[in-house]
Amino acid sequence: MDDHPPNLPWYQPIGDEVQVFEAAWAARLPVLLKGPTGCGKTRFIEHMAARVRAAGGGTGVPLVTVSCHEDLTANDLVGRHLLLHDRTVWTDGPLTRAVRSGAICYLDEIVEARRDTTVVLHSLADHRRVLPLEKTGELLQAAPDFLLVVSYNPGYQTLLKDLKPSTRQRFVSLAFDHPPPALEARIVVHESGIDATQADRLTDIAQRLRALQAQGVGDGVSTRALVHAAQLMRQGIAPRRACTVALADALGDDPALAQAARELIDVLLP
Amino acid sequence: MDDHPPNLPWYQPIGDEVQVFEAAWAARLPVLLKGPTGCGKTRFIEHMAARVRAAGGGTGVPLVTVSCHEDLTANDLVGRHLLLHDRTVWTDGPLTRAVRSGAICYLDEIVEARRDTTVVLHSLADHRRVLPLEKTGELLQAAPDFLLVVSYNPGYQTLLKDLKPSTRQRFVSLAFDHPPPALEARIVVHESGIDATQADRLTDIAQRLRALQAQGVGDGVSTRALVHAAQLMRQGIAPRRACTVALADALGDDPALAQAARELIDVLLP
Amino acid sequence: MDDHPPNLPWYQPIGDEVQVFEAAWAARLPVLLKGPTGCGKTRFIEHMAARVRAAGGGTGVPLVTVSCHEDLTANDLVGRHLLLHDRTVWTDGPLTRAVRSGAICYLDEIVEARRDTTVVLHSLADHRRVLPLEKTGELLQAAPDFLLVVSYNPGYQTLLKDLKPSTRQRFVSLAFDHPPPALEARIVVHESGIDATQADRLTDIAQRLRALQAQGVGDGVSTRALVHAAQLMRQGIAPRRACTVALADALGDDPALAQAARELIDVLLP
Amino acid sequence: MDDHPPNLPWYQPIGDEVQVFEAAWAARLPVLLKGPTGCGKTRFIEHMAARVRAAGGGTGVPLVTVSCHEDLTANDLVGRHLLLHDRTVWTDGPLTRAVRSGAICYLDEIVEARRDTTVVLHSLADHRRVLPLEKTGELLQAAPDFLLVVSYNPGYQTLLKDLKPSTRQRFVSLAFDHPPPALEARIVVHESGIDATQADRLTDIAQRLRALQAQGVGDGVSTRALVHAAQLMRQGIAPRRACTVALADALGDDPALAQAARELIDVLLP
Amino acid sequence: MDDHPPNLPWYQPIGDEVQVFEAAWAARLPVLLKGPTGCGKTRFIEHMAARVRAAGGGTGVPLVTVSCHEDLTANDLVGRHLLLHDRTVWTDGPLTRAVRSGAICYLDEIVEARRDTTVVLHSLADHRRVLPLEKTGELLQAAPDFLLVVSYNPGYQTLLKDLKPSTRQRFVSLAFDHPPPALEARIVVHESGIDATQADRLTDIAQRLRALQAQGVGDGVSTRALVHAAQLMRQGIAPRRACTVALADALGDDPALAQAARELIDVLLP
Amino acid sequence: MDDHPPNLPWYQPIGDEVQVFEAAWAARLPVLLKGPTGCGKTRFIEHMAARVRAAGGGTGVPLVTVSCHEDLTANDLVGRHLLLHDRTVWTDGPLTRAVRSGAICYLDEIVEARRDTTVVLHSLADHRRVLPLEKTGELLQAAPDFLLVVSYNPGYQTLLKDLKPSTRQRFVSLAFDHPPPALEARIVVHESGIDATQADRLTDIAQRLRALQAQGVGDGVSTRALVHAAQLMRQGIAPRRACTVALADALGDDPALAQAARELIDVLLP
Repeated sequence: MDDHPPNLPWYQPIGDEVQVFEAAWAARLPVLLKGPTGCGKTRFIEHMAARVRAAGGGTGVPLVTVSCHEDLTANDLVGRHLLLHDRTVWTDGPLTRAVRSGAICYLDEIVEARRDTTVVLHSLADHRRVLPLEKTGELLQAAPDFLLVVSYNPGYQTLLKDLKPSTRQRFVSLAFDHPPPALEARIVVHESGIDATQADRLTDIAQRLRALQAQGVGDGVSTRALVHAAQLMRQGIAPRRACTVALADALGDDPALAQAARELIDVLLP
Repeated sequence: MDDHPPNLPWYQPIGDEVQVFEAAWAARLPVLLKGPTGCGKTRFIEHMAARVRAAGGGTGVPLVTVSCHEDLTANDLVGRHLLLHDRTVWTDGPLTRAVRSGAICYLDEIVEARRDTTVVLHSLADHRRVLPLEKTGELLQAAPDFLLVVSYNPGYQTLLKDLKPSTRQRFVSLAFDHPPPALEARIVVHESGIDATQADRLTDIAQRLRALQAQGVGDGVSTRALVHAAQLMRQGIAPRRACTVALADALGDDPALAQAARELIDVLLP
Repeated sequence: MDDHPPNLPWYQPIGDEVQVFEAAWAARLPVLLKGPTGCGKTRFIEHMAARVRAAGGGTGVPLVTVSCHEDLTANDLVGRHLLLHDRTVWTDGPLTRAVRSGAICYLDEIVEARRDTTVVLHSLADHRRVLPLEKTGELLQAAPDFLLVVSYNPGYQTLLKDLKPSTRQRFVSLAFDHPPPALEARIVVHESGIDATQADRLTDIAQRLRALQAQGVGDGVSTRALVHAAQLMRQGIAPRRACTVALADALGDDPALAQAARELIDVLLP
Repeated sequence: MDDHPPNLPWYQPIGDEVQVFEAAWAARLPVLLKGPTGCGKTRFIEHMAARVRAAGGGTGVPLVTVSCHEDLTANDLVGRHLLLHDRTVWTDGPLTRAVRSGAICYLDEIVEARRDTTVVLHSLADHRRVLPLEKTGELLQAAPDFLLVVSYNPGYQTLLKDLKPSTRQRFVSLAFDHPPPALEARIVVHESGIDATQADRLTDIAQRLRALQAQGVGDGVSTRALVHAAQLMRQGIAPRRACTVALADALGDDPALAQAARELIDVLLP
Repeated sequence: MDDHPPNLPWYQPIGDEVQVFEAAWAARLPVLLKGPTGCGKTRFIEHMAARVRAAGGGTGVPLVTVSCHEDLTANDLVGRHLLLHDRTVWTDGPLTRAVRSGAICYLDEIVEARRDTTVVLHSLADHRRVLPLEKTGELLQAAPDFLLVVSYNPGYQTLLKDLKPSTRQRFVSLAFDHPPPALEARIVVHESGIDATQADRLTDIAQRLRALQAQGVGDGVSTRALVHAAQLMRQGIAPRRACTVALADALGDDPALAQAARELIDVLLP
Repeated sequence: MDDHPPNLPWYQPIGDEVQVFEAAWAARLPVLLKGPTGCGKTRFIEHMAARVRAAGGGTGVPLVTVSCHEDLTANDLVGRHLLLHDRTVWTDGPLTRAVRSGAICYLDEIVEARRDTTVVLHSLADHRRVLPLEKTGELLQAAPDFLLVVSYNPGYQTLLKDLKPSTRQRFVSLAFDHPPPALEARIVVHESGIDATQADRLTDIAQRLRALQAQGVGDGVSTRALVHAAQLMRQGIAPRRACTVALADALGDDPALAQAARELIDVLLP
């Protein structure tokens, strides 16, 4: 935490992800972040957007984030004609704004989007770096500081919801996972303000809950949920109860799993 | 009932749900209420919205309730452009109104909503507390008194209709269930005005109907249905008949179950 | 028939359905009518709407009927913006008209409607009695004489088309079935003008056709179809032929069933 | 053919269908015509519409025909708002025109329509005889000469495409089939102008092709196709070839069936 | 080729299809052309439209062609209201233009169209020859030179995509297939300009490739593809290579079939 | 590389694809490019569009590229009416622009498009070379320099997503595959600027990863991904790490395959 660059959104690196991202940025190669929910992908991209060197020489480029979902159409990303007074005017979507102005466009959980959403990215994610605006006839060349970054969670991937090889092979892949215990405890302390001893105990519980879950479905307890438990403790909720409502009951609806999680919490916490 | 705060919508607490909610409110952590139909989730959130301390120091914040369903789109929540006179004007949806003005936004039966509805909540339900209005290009920072609360009924959960882990892990979970008999009888007396003896007898029937149903599908007789039976009795309908039309026939269409329920009612009631 | 209240739409009661409905009305509890097609549910609600005591002290409240189907949306019920001259104006749907003015809103065959249609009823069918008009931002409190009544036919119920427990438990349930022979004959006489002997013979045929069908699918011959046969006989069609075209051929397309029905008619009728 | 009423569209009766329809018309009972394609249902209803006695005392009422299909919505039948100059105006659909003005509304192949189309008929097809125009708030009482007539082909009926019992039991059913040979030959002569000997030979072929097909799917050779073959013969095409292109090749794409049909034609025709 | 009528689009007859079509035209009977892709159905109808005798006495009638697909709606065929300046104006679709002005309307690959598209044809394809324009209330009587012609490819027919019997029996059927070798070689010479020896060799290859494919799916090498190979040879591509890219690789993606096709080409060609 | 035509987009030919394309161009025969993702199909068509001789005698014709996806409709390709000021104006889509002005229209991944998209191509891809604009009634004859080129990836082809024979047989087929090692290394050197020794090593890894994958699904490592690894190495990322993030992790989410790929990279690279 000592060596964290000042004036940047706080992020705790786990490996060489900062260096690989900077190399991909330098070559303007699209990047895919993959990993479970709540492990820090969003904070990482906020950090990197503020950190990279812009084409103009300054530090940091704007970040445009889009949460993907199954009703997100290519038009939502690219833009559409809107009726204004007595005529229709073209309005750029978030992707087009990023392409035109030079920004990192971060598409969170890309596999949730409809297929047409991913296809529109193809010409932006290879040597062409262009976005055809078919509705207006414009062929938009990306600004120098445009970069496409997408995330996805391999745990949700199904045959129906997967990246096509022609999409995936356009991206450099960065794999994320839950941080090792010592780093995770630092994150919990930083985010919630509880003391290190309590944070270590929470991290220990997270490790064991993840082991409990390893055979089943789902992503395992997230660092974000751990921070939630710590925040409830700061508000005076007893540790056992805080972990039950923030961790155990957030695992899903399998009664046997929930019961095992509660017993584990009872054993480990006062 | 004696210690109920005056001037608040009536609610009979079952456990420490009021205290945990107040802690989550203090840290502005999103809350998920789970439990069967008719067990008091709606009354609880009405009570809490009137009870919490607002950022400005006063008591109570506005409550915006949305009943979710499979045709509810993200646009329904966020807002849309409407044609007015000779131009289109942006109109905030209920979620945006709550985010902008500072209110508790309560999404009832969240799993019934389409997936795109839940994804739009992600950036409001983590450290960012922002709502991107993609249609207008606005990035709306939530007002201090905004809080997201959702409910869902684990009994309906299916593989197709479940919360994604990336959604669920953003929420502190509060589990509700049918109240214990003594508390349920207090509720029936308060809501219908029948006497305590009759209420105890209805509560006893509810207990047994829930046991009868425990192997099957469905949620069990709700406290709400019990109040209905009591209200019919107040209008002069015989107890047996009131319980048949309000409880037994509301269990579903399984003829064997309905018959068993009617026989049980005949044995227990005059 | 002697004791039928004058000046009301004619209805032949079968049991205590009039009294239970009046009690539910007094407490303004929503009512669910269930039973097979053509057994009199529509006539019953027409009768009750004209019979109940209005909040203002008079007799009878308006009735708004909506036939549900799988394309009926919540907007169809609640209302929508229509373009008028140079601006859009809000237009109440039938449900909103009933809520605003105080009327019985009767949703016929509710399970045929889309799920979003039933969810919009929830806040009208519990202690809140409100209808949120999300499109206009209005939260409409129901007028004193508003009551929600729905019907459905258990014979059509499937896993895909069923009432959710959270919907069903909001309603008092009144079960209907084919009337007993003596009452059914009175209905046939009243509706068609044939004599009592002929009506008894038709009622006898209906009983036997229902027995024939009891193993199969479908609802059994309805009282409405029986009245049709009687009306054809009044126009000079021979009883055998009238029963064939109004009863036997209306049972469905199973050739064996149709043949058995015709033979039965030939045996019983001249 | 001798006793055919003058000045009416030509129709060759097969049984008592004219008398039963007149009785149903007198009582204004809705009628369902069922039978295979090309057997004369359309000509029958054209004939009856011109034949029945109108309420005003004259002969004949207008006929409004709608061919149903799976994209036909209730709005297509009932009407919709159209933008005209600077405002929207309501435009009656074909059903509403028939209800308002007093006409026979004939819905051809009703089971092909979407379910919402059939539900809109319910209040027109029972004692109420009303059509609620939900979009305008009008409750339209049917004119005295309105009658609803629907047709369907039992051969297409599937579990997915069937009349609901609550729809079917509202109709008097008239079953049609291919005419007996002597009557069918009269029809062929009347429609094509070939001589009676040729017509008998064609009718004979039709009988045998229908026997050939009786085990399989489909409706059997229609009278309409027989008339086509006769018309080609009138244009100089050899009988064998005319029957092949109008009858054998119209049976479907089963090569064995087509081959058997051609051989049969070769044996029977010069 | 010698006896080809001058001034008409070139077409090589295979059998009596020209005479049967002329007889159907004379009686204005709708025609169905069935056969594999690329066998000349489109050229045939272009030829016939220019050849038939118009009602006014001249030669040839206009041809309106529509390629059917699964998103083609009845409105696309019939027409719709378009907004023009300050009002909506009705615009005829291609079918309505043909009906109104008197033209052959050719619906290519009719089974690909949505069902509602075929239903709209029914009243045009029987004795009525009318097209109801439900949107405008007009009942359009077909002009004397209107004729409906449809094509379809039996090889694609599936249970989901088939002509309904009530549609099919309205049409006279003309079956097409690949031409016999001598005629096919004449077509290839005429279309590409290669010499007869080369054309014979290509026709020979086509025969063998069709035999190879006879067990599998697909339509077999089309005459159109054969012309493509000949055109590439005229541009200097070696025969083996021309046949590989125009014939073998166009058979589909089965590697074993492609390999067998290439080996066959290598054996037969220099 | 020595003989590459100057002033053209760089492309490394693998076989005779340039010559076959030029012959197809001369006869204006539509071309289908098939092969795996990232093997150079897009660069090839960019190269050919700049290389072919235009009808007017100059070199090169415009290229219009459309990435197909399952929501791409025929209207997106052909054009639509847009509201402008007080009237609707027709706006050509990209296909219509290419047809009207004379350009190569390249439809990338054609099988991803909806069926109606491919049907609209039929009359452009045979002797007619016309595009009917049904919405405007215009029948557009293609300009002399119009050519239709489509690509697709046989690896994705499924029963649901396949070219119809009637579409496929209209095209001359050019098959692409990964280049042989020596040519692939030349491409990597040209695109990334790494030295030949490093490029050879990367090519070697690609060969082995493709062999590893040959039993499984997917397309194998693309030349594009190889260039990405080389670009990361140029930015200072160690070869092992560059190959892991650009090649191994881009293969998909099969953990066993990813592990084998990483081990192979560890063995082959320093």
